[in-house]
Amino acid sequence: MKARVHVMLKNGVLDPQGEAVRHALGTLGFDGVEGVRQGKVIELDLAETDAAKAEETVKDMCEKLLANTVIESYSVEIA
Amino acid sequence: MKARVHVMLKNGVLDPQGEAVRHALGTLGFDGVEGVRQGKVIELDLAETDAAKAEETVKDMCEKLLANTVIESYSVEIA
Repeated sequence: MKARVHVMLKNGVLDPQGEAVRHALGTLGFDGVEGVRQGKVIELDLAETDAAKAEETVKDMCEKLLANTVIESYSVEIA
Repeated sequence: MKARVHVMLKNGVLDPQGEAVRHALGTLGFDGVEGVRQGKVIELDLAETDAAKAEETVKDMCEKLLANTVIESYSVEIA
């Protein structure tokens, strides 16, 4: 079973990587870019075959390792 | 208009970040993790209102800045 986790900085937390990308796009001539946020995506291959259990496990992984929940939010997709 | 870009290392390209996450999950007691790949997600806020044009522009951004197409693949979602 495959899982995909998105980890993004929470709204209100300064995102210097995103700002750098926005600036670089501007210098390359891409106008009309109003905001950029950059985050991580983590794709997991799991032995678990039950979708509900897999989601539970992956959320646990996010809380313990994948996301810093003080400043980051995460979302889990099971496929 | 919002766009989301996923940038992942191509299959066959060594992913040390993903390997590190896999190892760390193992030491935390998460069994059954068969593979981990880590990539970037970039969320863009665009002034463009035409979905087809926005997708075209974002693909151009990927080719020129957001992805290193030698070792990375990208996908674009427009929402």
